[in-house]
Amino acid sequence: MKCGVSPIIGFRFSLYPMAANFVEVIKGALEQTDTSNVWMHTDDVSTVIRGKQVHVFNVAKAICLHAAKTGEHIAMSGTFSAGCPGDTAGDVYLEKGDEVANIDTTKQYVSSQFALYPMNNPDYMDVIYQEVDRAKERGVFNESMHYASGIHGDIHDVFAFYEESFTHARSEQHKHLVMTVSMSINSPSHGGR
Amino acid sequence: MKCGVSPIIGFRFSLYPMAANFVEVIKGALEQTDTSNVWMHTDDVSTVIRGKQVHVFNVAKAICLHAAKTGEHIAMSGTFSAGCPGDTAGDVYLEKGDEVANIDTTKQYVSSQFALYPMNNPDYMDVIYQEVDRAKERGVFNESMHYASGIHGDIHDVFAFYEESFTHARSEQHKHLVMTVSMSINSPSHGGR
Repeated sequence: MKCGVSPIIGFRFSLYPMAANFVEVIKGALEQTDTSNVWMHTDDVSTVIRGKQVHVFNVAKAICLHAAKTGEHIAMSGTFSAGCPGDTAGDVYLEKGDEVANIDTTKQYVSSQFALYPMNNPDYMDVIYQEVDRAKERGVFNESMHYASGIHGDIHDVFAFYEESFTHARSEQHKHLVMTVSMSINSPSHGGR
Repeated sequence: MKCGVSPIIGFRFSLYPMAANFVEVIKGALEQTDTSNVWMHTDDVSTVIRGKQVHVFNVAKAICLHAAKTGEHIAMSGTFSAGCPGDTAGDVYLEKGDEVANIDTTKQYVSSQFALYPMNNPDYMDVIYQEVDRAKERGVFNESMHYASGIHGDIHDVFAFYEESFTHARSEQHKHLVMTVSMSINSPSHGGR
């Protein structure tokens, strides 16, 4: 497992279009997204993007939103990571400015689930409870469940919460943070919109 | 977030068929699997199964294998959890015997990625490196990558490794363990089989 000692943020994810033309939907979403602010690599199972936090979340949301616009039922599942001990490849992207490359305010309902794993932190459960409270305050909390929490609403509110939560669940003392997210869009199963 | 103080194991996952008849593939795989040894609940984003470790892994593999048999490109992404502080719903399933309910030796190539998160354990990186070495010894290691490790091979070898690794990466002292897995089957992108 390769990680990074730098302030670089990573998101390893897969985009799953529940459609016969899944290759076209995935490639289209990647092509329509401006990924110039992040380091990106795709293999046969997933894609990883790495860089400054603001760009990693911006690119992740843009890919998701472009795929959603096909109208197909799509899902995005992945893991955000910060502060993982290891290598530092891709650090050049930390020199990018803070202006995001993808601006698209199209509304899109998302039903999702997330879990936070603050590593090597004896108070990690307190951190988790605090972020679940934050979701309730932000109006995106859906429901409690085993091993995760349900987060839903407009894609912009959902991603804003995830970025805010990811910022607050780590600290100088506890740098290594992992956050898993599983998002579902255009699903026939959504009842909560 | 609800978890369990008991020795119960949980797996929250989503099955993603990249096909127009995704509902049929998902429902078919769930119906063809004997889930009588686990507690199961499905919502609009994922499914959670909970019970004794042997049955949780057996049911997960069976669902995956049944879906693979449709010939469609399918993916399964999820999180195995043990020892999470919290509630104890579903503990009645711990009284089940150890005989697995699903036996199917059909060969199936799987390309996957996994990450281990031993919680509140200062030596967690050593645990991770040890399990990556185990993957190499078992012949299922594919490649190193940011935030995860590539694991591939026949579905039975891959699941056997995952169950063995999940057993060894936790201890009486460090009970809370999380393992994320992302599996891909019948993909046009697989080159490693």
